[in-house]
Order: sequence, then C-alpha cells, then structure tokens
Amino acid sequence: MKIIGLSGSLRKASTNTGLLRAAGTFAPDGVEIMDYQDVPIYNGDDEAASGIHARAKEIADALQEADALIIACPEYNFSLPGGLKNLIDWISRIRPTPFAGKPTAILGAAPGPIGTARVQYDLRKVLSALDADLVGKPEVFVGLSGPRFDANGDLTDETSLEFVGKLVDALVKKAGG
Amino acid sequence: MKIIGLSGSLRKASTNTGLLRAAGTFAPDGVEIMDYQDVPIYNGDDEAASGIHARAKEIADALQEADALIIACPEYNFSLPGGLKNLIDWISRIRPTPFAGKPTAILGAAPGPIGTARVQYDLRKVLSALDADLVGKPEVFVGLSGPRFDANGDLTDETSLEFVGKLVDALVKKAGG
Amino acid sequence: MKIIGLSGSLRKASTNTGLLRAAGTFAPDGVEIMDYQDVPIYNGDDEAASGIHARAKEIADALQEADALIIACPEYNFSLPGGLKNLIDWISRIRPTPFAGKPTAILGAAPGPIGTARVQYDLRKVLSALDADLVGKPEVFVGLSGPRFDANGDLTDETSLEFVGKLVDALVKKAGG
Amino acid sequence: MKIIGLSGSLRKASTNTGLLRAAGTFAPDGVEIMDYQDVPIYNGDDEAASGIHARAKEIADALQEADALIIACPEYNFSLPGGLKNLIDWISRIRPTPFAGKPTAILGAAPGPIGTARVQYDLRKVLSALDADLVGKPEVFVGLSGPRFDANGDLTDETSLEFVGKLVDALVKKAGG
Repeated sequence: MKIIGLSGSLRKASTNTGLLRAAGTFAPDGVEIMDYQDVPIYNGDDEAASGIHARAKEIADALQEADALIIACPEYNFSLPGGLKNLIDWISRIRPTPFAGKPTAILGAAPGPIGTARVQYDLRKVLSALDADLVGKPEVFVGLSGPRFDANGDLTDETSLEFVGKLVDALVKKAGG
Repeated sequence: MKIIGLSGSLRKASTNTGLLRAAGTFAPDGVEIMDYQDVPIYNGDDEAASGIHARAKEIADALQEADALIIACPEYNFSLPGGLKNLIDWISRIRPTPFAGKPTAILGAAPGPIGTARVQYDLRKVLSALDADLVGKPEVFVGLSGPRFDANGDLTDETSLEFVGKLVDALVKKAGG
Repeated sequence: MKIIGLSGSLRKASTNTGLLRAAGTFAPDGVEIMDYQDVPIYNGDDEAASGIHARAKEIADALQEADALIIACPEYNFSLPGGLKNLIDWISRIRPTPFAGKPTAILGAAPGPIGTARVQYDLRKVLSALDADLVGKPEVFVGLSGPRFDANGDLTDETSLEFVGKLVDALVKKAGG
Repeated sequence: MKIIGLSGSLRKASTNTGLLRAAGTFAPDGVEIMDYQDVPIYNGDDEAASGIHARAKEIADALQEADALIIACPEYNFSLPGGLKNLIDWISRIRPTPFAGKPTAILGAAPGPIGTARVQYDLRKVLSALDADLVGKPEVFVGLSGPRFDANGDLTDETSLEFVGKLVDALVKKAGG
C-alpha cells in the first residue's frame, strides 16, 4: 500500500513532517514524504508556455499511483501555508486530477493550545474542491506541541502517537487495506 | 496617498490585476501593483539562515510606508492562491507586521457565477490574523467575468467599475483621505 | 429507500423546500420533508429538566431509521439559518447521533448570483462535526433563483432539475441504492 | 456607555454568560445581558403576517440605542448555536440594521483545548455580513474552561480575566469611550 505524505512545513526539524514519520510507522508499507521546495509560484502564463512544473508533475504522478494521501499541516496566519497550497494549485491543473476519489487524511501540530483547528477546515474545503475522499474521524490536533516532540521533530508523546495510529488505521481502511 | 496593490494572479492578462488597474483610476495617486513571482516557497530554515527573502522584504517595506493596501484575488480550489498566501506568510515573519492597522480592501474576479465568494472570507480571516483594518462594505465580486474585461484584462463593464470606485472610496476614507 | 428532507426555510412557498420536492421526484421512494417550526431554542437546562424536545426527538428517530438525508439550505447572513442549526444542535445531543455515517446531500437556492456558496461550506463543517457521510459532488447552487421557480416554490428550470437529479443519484448510490 | 451582551448559551450557569458578567466588571457602566429564550424559529410567513417578534424587536431597539455589543459564544457542532443565530436572523430583517457600524467584540469559553476557535470566525463572517464594526484584537478563547469558572459560571481565572479586560478596553475605545 503506497501512501504519499505532504508536510505543510519544509523545515528539517518540522514537527509536522515528524507527524508524517510517525504515521509511517503505523502504515503497512510506510509513508513516502515528498518535498516541494523547488516548485515555483504558480503562474498561468508559465504553465501555458512550459506546462506543469517538473517537480509538481512528479508529485502528481506519484499521487496518481498511490493508494492514499496524508497531509500534515501547520497553521500559517490562520490558514494553509502558501507553499503547500501552491503545490496543490499546480497539481490541480492536471486532468484527471490525482486528488479525485483519493483516500486522504489530514492532521497537524502547533505550539499553541488551539492546535491547527483553524486551518484544518480550510484544508478540508480545498480538498473537497478536488473531490478527495477525506477521512472524517478521528480529527488529530497536536496542540501545545513543544514537549510532545524531540529536537529532530520526532513525535514522542504516547497519547498523540495513539491518535496518529488511529488516523492511519482509518485511512488504510478507506484505501481498502 | 500611497496604495499598494497585490494581485492573486500573476498572469499578464489577469483580470484580477486588471481590477487593480481599474482601482488605480479611482485612487488619488493611483495604485502601485507589486509582483512577487520570484519569492520562493517559505522555509523556516532558509529564513533562519538568510533572513527574509529580498523581494518579500521590499514589498513589506513598501507596505510599511503605504497608506493602504488593496488585494484582488481569484479563487484557486475554493481558497487563496498559494503564491499570494506564500508572500503573506513571508511578510508576516517581519515584526512589527506591516499589515497591522493597515487600511485594506479586497475584491475579486472569476469566470463563474459565484465570483470569488468562497475565497474572500478566507482572505478576510488571514488578514484579521495580521490585524489589518479591513474595509467591510462594499463587497466586490466580479462574477461571470468573461465579457466584463477586454483581452488585456482591463475592466470595461460599467457596473463593475462603479463598484470598484465605491470600494476605493471606502478605502481612501479609512486611510484618512 | 427512506430519505429525510430538511429545509433551511420554513416559508410555505420556500424555494429551498421546493428543491426538496424536486429531489423527491428523482428518489426511488420520494423524500419525506420534516418541519421543525415548533422546536424551541436549545437550552441545556431545559434538556436536563425535560430531555430532548419531542419534535426534535421525532425527527432524530426518523433520521435514525432513514437511509439518507438531504438538506436544502438558504443563506441567512452568510451562514446557516438559525432555526435549522438549532434543530441540528438539539439532535446532536442524542447518542448515538443519527447523523453519524448517514449518507447526506446538501444543496441550496438563493435570489442572488452567489447562490448559497457561503453557507454550504459552513454546513459541510457542521455535518462533518457530526460525522455525516457527505456527498462531495456535484455541488448544487441554484443562483438567481427568481425565474427558476414558480409562485409555489416549485423548481421549473430544466438545467437546475438536471443538477438536482444528479445529486439525488449520487446520494442514492452512497446509500447503497 | 451602554453595552449590550448576548450569550450563545442560555443555561443559568453558562460559562459564556459568565464571561459577559466578567466583561461587565470592566465596562464603565456594565454590560446589560439580554435573554432570547422565547424568540421563535424565524419563518418569513410569520414575519409577513405579524412583523418582527416582540422580543427580537426589543433586543434590536436596545442594540440600536447602545454604544456597543459584546457576544460570548460557545461552539455547538463546530459553529454558532442555532438559537443565537436565529436571534441575529430576526434582527437582521429590521432596516436599518442595528448591527451596522456597531462596535462589537466577541469571545468564548469551551471545555476543550481548542476553545472556540472554530466558531469565532463563523461569527465574524456573520457579523461582517451585517457590517458590524468588529474588534480585531485581542482574540479571547477561554479553553479548558472547567477549572477557570466556579459552579455559578463566574470566571475566576486571573489570566482569563485579564484578557477579558483587554477586550473590553478595546471595545470601549472603539465606541469612543
């Protein structure tokens, strides 16, 4: 079972990328985390001239073949990190969209108490625009993240790990696993 | 009166950039449209190593000096274009944030009937995170945009122009003009 | 196949109730529209003293037995009509919640061009809180509703009828029909 | 300075009503909390036959004369309590709307860690539909509310009280006080 992971944060020690690594330990064949640092800002003229950017195309192709998608997303200014949204915008230009019907789970970590409660519904709206097949429950908000991760961004908190495990189970089940 | 304009679309013939040009004709000293094509995807490690990206800093500085901001925003997958959000994310890292208390107006054009009704409230939420001083009314949605703009993306529809004018008036008034 | 219909408007000639009647013509065994005019404002003290209000309980029971739910919802002040939300709040107090896993479709009519684009995502968020199994596509917005309905609130516009039919098909399929 | 308070919860020992009482201790002339338990579900036919319901009209009149409004709102199923929204829907039928330009502050308490982060932006959207003049900062979320209130729903937590005080200051300032 191939599961693609996208993190809303590109920092090396990102706790959200750490959530994806934690998810990988619960998935039957792990989670393949894909980076998108080099994807440029979407511009329709560039697309008309040169097509979909190579790295966005690569991720889209991997997604097309994958059984499922998991997105770990911090909250930037109450909503989606622009970089992650920009990647989604690029991929959404491909027909048929690889998001359509794709079993998809979301979760997020944040230093404050509110976790990522504001961004997750925006992300759900965006993914529903693309007709992804979203896992409804459990919702996973890892708030007050500081002591729950180590310095490398690896999740060490037992309760949070349990929630991540349940989310992966729900995703795998939706993907027919 | 210095007004900065940001367009959510970077296409040359973008109708949203056209809305900013139209807004400029109603503003006492025009609207200065700033481009952000070269701003890379935000990465906290890059910021830690090299500071705020030069172009994001330039726009932030211009915004700091400006009397007002106007954002014309299309809807990408039911929410903000990632590129525009990425720029906002970069600028939001600067303290004090140049958005705080800044008189700000938003509007948008879209080919469909719904205009940009879905994105404008997400954008309001993001700007309220940054404590911008938002113009409440009028709300300007230029739906079914096709025949309302010419091939260069210039707004030609009289009714829409009137709404843009009213929005600029409200913005200028908020900015003390 | 038992499908319950809830309308966000309680007017006799409501176009949203008209959408439910139209949906009924496409459903194998029709749509049973349930009224909630007499449900009082939710108050936790009243619930503690007297339990769930009888009419809310009746609707909850019908929903529990039903195969599917369809909600036609106007936009009041950019979001859900309070009356419909109040009914949902009452029903949500019952355990297990009859919304959980229930195949559910939403649609809406409005006199303006934006249709009900603002409210439908709020309604999706509320229903996802209750773990309903939402139909993703098609989304049905009957904008500029005036000429599309007759004086009784019956839907007469062919294109809109076609969309309603497709939505009912998707709902019936989700409900195993 | 006349400030009207509306609570999203009508329970006697409601912590949200407690937030309004706490706000009253910081306001120059207190906060007048208005109840709306008897307001029926809005129905356009009833309005056409009998006009605005008497209690909704009373609250609207008080609001029209008031210098400011403060709303304390719990989260019901991720959004506004239906009863509060129903009251707003009734009042919004009056022209000119008493919300327009009215200095307005919002806050909320909830037992969970997320506080009322999901509902506050929905409430902001609704109030912006009515052109209220919203206090942007501070945002006040009283999460994990259990130990912060006494059995009567009175706020006893020092940190939370400080935040409520700052919010009232911002509201009073906006109201010209």
